[in-house]
Amino acid sequence: MRFLRVKMDELKVVTEEVPEQYRKLAGRGLTSRLILDEVPPTAHPLGPKAKLFIAPGALAGTSAPSSGRVSVGGKSPLTWGIKEANAGTPVAQSLGRLGIKALIVEGEPKDGKYYILKVTKDGTEFLPAGDLVGKGLYEAYGELKKSFPTAGFIACGPSAERKLATAGVCFNDTEGRPSRYAGRGGLGAVMAAKGLKFIVVDGTGTQPVAPANAELFHKGTEKLREAILTHGVTKPGGTLNSYGTAALINALNEAGGLPTRNFSSGRFEGAAKVSGEHLADVIHQRGGEGMTGHGCHPGCLIKCSNIYSKPDGKEHVSCVEYESDWALGPNCGIDDLDAIAEMIWQCNDLGIDTIELGVTIGVAMEAGLLKFGDAKGAVALFDEIRMGTALGHILGQGAAFTGRAFGVVRVPTVKGQGMPAYEPRAVKGIGMTYITSPMGADHTAGYSVAVEILSVGGKADPLAVEGKGALSKAFQETTAYIDTSGYCLFIAFPILDIASGFEGMIESVNAVLGTEFTGADVTKFGAEVLSWEREFNRLAGMTSAHNRPPEFMRYEKLPPHNNVYDVPDEELDKIAGA
Amino acid sequence: MRFLRVKMDELKVVTEEVPEQYRKLAGRGLTSRLILDEVPPTAHPLGPKAKLFIAPGALAGTSAPSSGRVSVGGKSPLTWGIKEANAGTPVAQSLGRLGIKALIVEGEPKDGKYYILKVTKDGTEFLPAGDLVGKGLYEAYGELKKSFPTAGFIACGPSAERKLATAGVCFNDTEGRPSRYAGRGGLGAVMAAKGLKFIVVDGTGTQPVAPANAELFHKGTEKLREAILTHGVTKPGGTLNSYGTAALINALNEAGGLPTRNFSSGRFEGAAKVSGEHLADVIHQRGGEGMTGHGCHPGCLIKCSNIYSKPDGKEHVSCVEYESDWALGPNCGIDDLDAIAEMIWQCNDLGIDTIELGVTIGVAMEAGLLKFGDAKGAVALFDEIRMGTALGHILGQGAAFTGRAFGVVRVPTVKGQGMPAYEPRAVKGIGMTYITSPMGADHTAGYSVAVEILSVGGKADPLAVEGKGALSKAFQETTAYIDTSGYCLFIAFPILDIASGFEGMIESVNAVLGTEFTGADVTKFGAEVLSWEREFNRLAGMTSAHNRPPEFMRYEKLPPHNNVYDVPDEELDKIAGA
Repeated sequence: MRFLRVKMDELKVVTEEVPEQYRKLAGRGLTSRLILDEVPPTAHPLGPKAKLFIAPGALAGTSAPSSGRVSVGGKSPLTWGIKEANAGTPVAQSLGRLGIKALIVEGEPKDGKYYILKVTKDGTEFLPAGDLVGKGLYEAYGELKKSFPTAGFIACGPSAERKLATAGVCFNDTEGRPSRYAGRGGLGAVMAAKGLKFIVVDGTGTQPVAPANAELFHKGTEKLREAILTHGVTKPGGTLNSYGTAALINALNEAGGLPTRNFSSGRFEGAAKVSGEHLADVIHQRGGEGMTGHGCHPGCLIKCSNIYSKPDGKEHVSCVEYESDWALGPNCGIDDLDAIAEMIWQCNDLGIDTIELGVTIGVAMEAGLLKFGDAKGAVALFDEIRMGTALGHILGQGAAFTGRAFGVVRVPTVKGQGMPAYEPRAVKGIGMTYITSPMGADHTAGYSVAVEILSVGGKADPLAVEGKGALSKAFQETTAYIDTSGYCLFIAFPILDIASGFEGMIESVNAVLGTEFTGADVTKFGAEVLSWEREFNRLAGMTSAHNRPPEFMRYEKLPPHNNVYDVPDEELDKIAGA
Repeated sequence: MRFLRVKMDELKVVTEEVPEQYRKLAGRGLTSRLILDEVPPTAHPLGPKAKLFIAPGALAGTSAPSSGRVSVGGKSPLTWGIKEANAGTPVAQSLGRLGIKALIVEGEPKDGKYYILKVTKDGTEFLPAGDLVGKGLYEAYGELKKSFPTAGFIACGPSAERKLATAGVCFNDTEGRPSRYAGRGGLGAVMAAKGLKFIVVDGTGTQPVAPANAELFHKGTEKLREAILTHGVTKPGGTLNSYGTAALINALNEAGGLPTRNFSSGRFEGAAKVSGEHLADVIHQRGGEGMTGHGCHPGCLIKCSNIYSKPDGKEHVSCVEYESDWALGPNCGIDDLDAIAEMIWQCNDLGIDTIELGVTIGVAMEAGLLKFGDAKGAVALFDEIRMGTALGHILGQGAAFTGRAFGVVRVPTVKGQGMPAYEPRAVKGIGMTYITSPMGADHTAGYSVAVEILSVGGKADPLAVEGKGALSKAFQETTAYIDTSGYCLFIAFPILDIASGFEGMIESVNAVLGTEFTGADVTKFGAEVLSWEREFNRLAGMTSAHNRPPEFMRYEKLPPHNNVYDVPDEELDKIAGA
């Protein structure tokens, strides 16, 4: 394994041996450590001192199940703090097979132009991005596929070229769609600021990664495989496989925790029309190219993705998952799946994080720019972003920015990042994760919803405060480990309930990294990664005042439970430090 | 003296005896202490928990010379930290004569409408703002004058109604123009968020404030008067009286410290055309209603203001002062005084801070929205703000916001506030003030330029770093005292050079407040005020990372001296704390 240091100012790639201190890191653990070590904390995220890091998880390129995750890290132009976002994609596996521990992108091209970096087993090459600049990613990926038929792609979209903080880093799915995103925090804009438009990753001629300890690896992955294939949430024909993540719509609506119309209610009267169950029905009824149970990378056993089809059965977009469905649906008072699918397609094409944009449109509706429920108006907003109008620049910078532009007080963000699809006032533990995660409001940073709503890994009243600090903390730490492993976070469901699955995860990672972790080491390692991330944020100027809920949630009661966010500041500080 | 607590939610004013701990405070000292005591530091500046404080200086309403200052304070929607901005206006004197120590504005009207608060010696009254809402301030002041011919006005303009962070709080000058601003930091938007559109202050029937110690007051003010009338900068026919503050254009240009084209050079080839000397010539040549040596409030001995006239001699705007002239001129590559005057008029009419908007236009030019030097294009931008277009909302939120909207890296702000007319790389001490002031980049917070450029109060090489930390610190502390006294900051020139003037200032304040300050107590008191301000910022989430220059000034060399901002972080932390 090696580092590829991509020096954009010289258009040169330097291969570096991986220094000792990074060898037992990968994925998020690696990107976060590299950010702390190499990025000046007060640097402008789009300036010449900023860097972008791309690191596949520890298991990427092995035969471990559901392990095709790749982490992207940098200083976020959305939060101005540390950021890791990850995606499931065949590209993760190709990077692993190519022996690339991390791509470190630094500097800016002297000519101010955009470039393609091609990476194969034979080396690297820079090519001009030429007329692919400015193109939507569906068209761009189509053209790239013609030139590089055996490769996968890492890209930033037209939104990133405009330096929008909603711009994600795009990968491709199994069939080459520009649909798998390290979406959050605007890292696409960082990539664009480096003058790097595409990375073409061709793993042709490489072999799967052979773990250092083959026996342990086999033992561990078998245990984990068994757990995934057994658990009700992740097994074939289970919840995720049948309905996708959108199965959560009904569950959260029932719990009164589905944020509706810019977090003004926890229940949406149109929930059934955008639910996972209805989504699956529509896909099956329409027939044609639509499908549920679609996987984002080879070797995934869970297959929670889908392909949503138009009324005539032709493919519309992959995929309509819970967060996108909610953000562009209930959060905007919209109950029209076709409109939601169209907005997801627009996000994918423009290279935009669906969550942040959905939260942004909710804030724009709050500001009175358009009415809640106006699906047509919401779809039309994408033209503003595509054309680069002033309004497009406001929306494209995210929810907090849009709130400030129009003087909106009710803005559901933490550290400048829009809240995902769980209302903190109704699900207190996930609120703690939003508020205390170094990433800003991020449900994947510590998914206590498993316990609070899904009764996986235990059971807790979502409205209760007691015990939730410890729960959020443990989830945040375990997540930092999983995000390092390269496993999909959804293995959390089986390993929370099935002890041998948890053991299997650790054994398989030990087998590859040469670590000797026990179960107790998982949270210890996670805590260390979090400490690096918090240290970067501290040096960047964040304090405990940044670990606070949006003020309006402290005094505004949320229907249907009619309560405020009542977790005391001291409890938040226990998780993240005072 | 008493507090008027203006409860906008009940449309009620409560008269409160001034609590003991506030009795020896006034102006900035009072507003800053009240902010720390009454505003939750993490409150949204435009939300229901925010408050606005208006406090005349200690000497307002007395016969002390050049003492017509009034402080406005609150949590800034521009910096999200503490803010005090002050203005020279007859309204300050009326407030003093009415015995009002401070207006404390809190709550929000339940009906979401705008109100006028009328304050006279007989009491207070709320009136609907009616169709004055949305009107430019020249028209609005004209109409108010018809209804309240003997009153002065405190107002927020149309920009504030749009919740723009460039919106200042407007007062009136001696002849009733909407031209005297507590401009910086967006406090106009805070006023608008409280539903308070105008405060009509009528001092009719009141008497000048009689100082507690009349003899000491007389002695002190006479000494100060003598100093003001003697010093070359402030005396009748002296620099400020003859050319206004714009006399600084040539001085700074000569020193290579006149920020030009968004802080990309310290020298502007068109400086002579916008200089104070040329400005005075134009006014005199055109004749008619134009004048130099205009005063902003009765009793001012310095009279640095002016009335700029159109080519036909009719009044265009009052006043073209250095900061406005520079911000909308050299900083945008514009050398056309008539265009600059028109933009100042637009700012006054819309209720906007000229400095912040000039810096913003410079950033917009950097972003490529229009070309440097495009005076016509710059003037046209005001239509965007007036009409409330999306672009108007971007520009109206200030320089840092505009920079983020368009991904600009070269943004000359500290704590989100645009830098005034002195380039830190060429005048190191004032840079320290910008960087370490709790107010954000603010030249009035510690005007070391006096020593560095004007050789007043000593002499120091502007490019030198040594000794500048102590200089900036002493200036910041003394300024906090002067901003509390109600004296115009320009008395700093005579009192720096003339010891008896300094004594006179202290004696006159002692005579009114009942303090027993000696010379040494001035900086001690100022340090205490600064400590309150820093404490609020700390609780609001600011750290030493917020006491840093814009990153680009650390690596980009500024012509003509071709140096970077090389004051070490440690020196900055010595001033403001680590």
